[in-house]
Amino acid sequence: MGYFVDLNSDIGESFGSYKMGMDEEIVKHVTSINCACGYHAGDPLIMDKTVKAAVENDVQIGAHPGYPDLMGFGRRKMAISPEEARAYMLYQVGALDAFAKAHGTKLQHMKLHGGFYNTACNDEKLANAILDAIEEYDKNLILMVLSGSYIAKEGKRRGLKVAQEVFADRGYNEDGTLVNRSLPGAFVKDPAEAIPRVVKMIKENKVVTADGKEIDIVADSICVHGDNPEALEFVKNIRAGLEKEGIEVKPLISFLK
Amino acid sequence: MGYFVDLNSDIGESFGSYKMGMDEEIVKHVTSINCACGYHAGDPLIMDKTVKAAVENDVQIGAHPGYPDLMGFGRRKMAISPEEARAYMLYQVGALDAFAKAHGTKLQHMKLHGGFYNTACNDEKLANAILDAIEEYDKNLILMVLSGSYIAKEGKRRGLKVAQEVFADRGYNEDGTLVNRSLPGAFVKDPAEAIPRVVKMIKENKVVTADGKEIDIVADSICVHGDNPEALEFVKNIRAGLEKEGIEVKPLISFLK
Amino acid sequence: MGYFVDLNSDIGESFGSYKMGMDEEIVKHVTSINCACGYHAGDPLIMDKTVKAAVENDVQIGAHPGYPDLMGFGRRKMAISPEEARAYMLYQVGALDAFAKAHGTKLQHMKLHGGFYNTACNDEKLANAILDAIEEYDKNLILMVLSGSYIAKEGKRRGLKVAQEVFADRGYNEDGTLVNRSLPGAFVKDPAEAIPRVVKMIKENKVVTADGKEIDIVADSICVHGDNPEALEFVKNIRAGLEKEGIEVKPLISFLK
Amino acid sequence: MGYFVDLNSDIGESFGSYKMGMDEEIVKHVTSINCACGYHAGDPLIMDKTVKAAVENDVQIGAHPGYPDLMGFGRRKMAISPEEARAYMLYQVGALDAFAKAHGTKLQHMKLHGGFYNTACNDEKLANAILDAIEEYDKNLILMVLSGSYIAKEGKRRGLKVAQEVFADRGYNEDGTLVNRSLPGAFVKDPAEAIPRVVKMIKENKVVTADGKEIDIVADSICVHGDNPEALEFVKNIRAGLEKEGIEVKPLISFLK
Repeated sequence: MGYFVDLNSDIGESFGSYKMGMDEEIVKHVTSINCACGYHAGDPLIMDKTVKAAVENDVQIGAHPGYPDLMGFGRRKMAISPEEARAYMLYQVGALDAFAKAHGTKLQHMKLHGGFYNTACNDEKLANAILDAIEEYDKNLILMVLSGSYIAKEGKRRGLKVAQEVFADRGYNEDGTLVNRSLPGAFVKDPAEAIPRVVKMIKENKVVTADGKEIDIVADSICVHGDNPEALEFVKNIRAGLEKEGIEVKPLISFLK
Repeated sequence: MGYFVDLNSDIGESFGSYKMGMDEEIVKHVTSINCACGYHAGDPLIMDKTVKAAVENDVQIGAHPGYPDLMGFGRRKMAISPEEARAYMLYQVGALDAFAKAHGTKLQHMKLHGGFYNTACNDEKLANAILDAIEEYDKNLILMVLSGSYIAKEGKRRGLKVAQEVFADRGYNEDGTLVNRSLPGAFVKDPAEAIPRVVKMIKENKVVTADGKEIDIVADSICVHGDNPEALEFVKNIRAGLEKEGIEVKPLISFLK
Repeated sequence: MGYFVDLNSDIGESFGSYKMGMDEEIVKHVTSINCACGYHAGDPLIMDKTVKAAVENDVQIGAHPGYPDLMGFGRRKMAISPEEARAYMLYQVGALDAFAKAHGTKLQHMKLHGGFYNTACNDEKLANAILDAIEEYDKNLILMVLSGSYIAKEGKRRGLKVAQEVFADRGYNEDGTLVNRSLPGAFVKDPAEAIPRVVKMIKENKVVTADGKEIDIVADSICVHGDNPEALEFVKNIRAGLEKEGIEVKPLISFLK
Repeated sequence: MGYFVDLNSDIGESFGSYKMGMDEEIVKHVTSINCACGYHAGDPLIMDKTVKAAVENDVQIGAHPGYPDLMGFGRRKMAISPEEARAYMLYQVGALDAFAKAHGTKLQHMKLHGGFYNTACNDEKLANAILDAIEEYDKNLILMVLSGSYIAKEGKRRGLKVAQEVFADRGYNEDGTLVNRSLPGAFVKDPAEAIPRVVKMIKENKVVTADGKEIDIVADSICVHGDNPEALEFVKNIRAGLEKEGIEVKPLISFLK
């Protein structure tokens, strides 16, 4: 039996005249992309271009819905209701799906963005509103979420397709959440350290926390970044490192049941 | 052989805490609704509620994409490019389609809103960008446009499903366009005058212009309004008047080839 | 020695084609208005019209800055930083001040709106960012805040002009905060009950909480609403009731030191 | 008698997490900056930072109001009314003025942005609405406009302070408008050509058009750009070239009557 994992990256985050990220480059090195949908970032022209680039590079496409907060890039927590969470997600997923349809393809997955992701992964009411929306919209749409989160467990219990996501460059707490960006141990920036970490997550389903404990983790997909040349180099290193360890890098849809 | 026509109305134009229109009432008296999609009006919660009301009242649903100009309600002309026109339309149609899917139904049609409608119906570049987008998205999606416009002719030539729209309460110029709202003859507000006008449009394919000439017109659908109690009364009168004249009022999808 | 109090109301909350509130009416019955500044509600045309109406009715003007969340009407809590709080407030106050200047008048006060008000009145970091901004902008601008809140005390300690606000139609908790809208005792809708309550606040500086305890309160200004004909009637009743009790209703600027 | 000119640049055009321009650099080489005000670009945090940088570098500050179209960066023509033009300008000027006040300074000038500038400089109704707004807001606020435009002449006739702007890197038509960016002769990118051009504008009040005719021009201020390292180099070259020719580079406020 072989090992495999998906590599995902957030792209399509430019807006109007504003450029963000190195989308044209990163799309060549991942197997799935999460495309911003116009609320926290992205606009219709960017979404069209992003979907086109994914199709041309044979990369799977996911919607990346965020809070309606362009000024805060969707990172600031907003106290939205479960009804709003469901509706904001449907709106953005549908908007992106139109571009997928126009380019002759389909969405592989949906991953919430920023503050929306952080909150909905473990807030039971929001998580269930999101799960309801997936069920109503398309039961085959893969839900990409934080590994070990409430929404991961509840999504699986409901029989939905759930991809558990891990971070190659972030430290973990004992409860499986990420170490806050302002604290020590938040980042793992050296590929020499990051590669064995993700290999262990994939082969042993374990990760060592910032405090030195070993916890369980499921790594269906690894989130990587393409914000700058260093980030891009990190991705190439991770991918090469995984393949050297006999781990096949391929999209969720090819292996997720 | 019988006569028939669709009755359509723009609804779902509330936004956040702002209420506009008498959606709950007007939806009972028309056969198709055009639902705002969040750019010139509407938001995800309103779109969800509007689609739900349409389904409950067995009314067909159309997307009503507008300019990205909530402050101007999409009425001010904006010099958008054909690429932007295509992308803005796809974005909004897809967003609404998500709510249709979530409620177990499909979109019947797409009708542009306000300044976008006025411009794209007769600007060849914009019209073709819109027609391209319909072809890419769903060839079966009915395109509702101004009767006799460039986009109507070109859409038919391409083999798309085109519904030509007339206005019960508006005066016409000789070229088939509407008399500007600021000019005399712009409005036909008396049902006693409006009913025979629309009957003539449907049975004879003719309308008398503000200047007294008779021109050709095709009336697949009549646009009516539900902004206030008088408008609502006008709709009821029009519908009763049509039925009395043996004209069946039914959705586009039931008769448009 | 006489008694006096200011009556304030939130107006200018329309947006584009969307109308909210009965601004033309309520402005005749209060002494100060809080004008929305384009973030949670309001737009430049509405702001201009609102300032003009205040000037014509000899009513004092205050800025009413909110969260940048039109879709949520500024009511949903957003996790903004102290730097953002300061900058968002300055931006909106300045924008309104331009209309005051254009109409030959000046702003009397500043009162935060909705979620911004609720959070900044008692969050020390946000409160201090707001106080800093007032000091930098104009030390004579009156700060209208929740009676007894942290920001009220700290503003006074700094030597700023602070107007403490009470609510004629809301119940109080023991700590001086308002009873949550979803709980029993949240509202006092009967003028027969509300009038003696506010008279007691003004003459005795006391209010009876929802639990029946008597707490201290300072009533420089009473917040009233003009959302509908009933609200308007309530305001007229309150004002007449106050005047009957010998309490003069006049703007903050005429008595606040 | 000596020669002098102002050098102005559009800055503060970043938004939220999106960075645009090399503001920290360009601010060191110009005498006046035009700061975006949140409609076509900019946000309150950026405005605060931009004003601070201008103060620290002893550069004069102008407001740069644009269309409410962040997605189109204010470049697309929008059919706004004179009332809207007046109100949108006041709103944005006031918003920026708050940051000037908070940093202990005042606005030197106001220059419209992009499509708003292009339209209002020669549309008589819009131009007069803008002139009215300046008069109402502050008669001493310098109005920076296209050299030779209708608004320049009418502003002077009214007795307002008008700064006529020229472009170092753009070609001119015979009527004094700029050659459209898509046409040959639109740009003058070589400093060896641009420097003698602007020197001629300043010393002789003449410029040679793209078609080779000589027309009259007034150069109170030269617009330059700081979008990239080449643009920055161009500015340094222009400034050095002007000074070598005995032309003093200094802010409008020091010489405009």
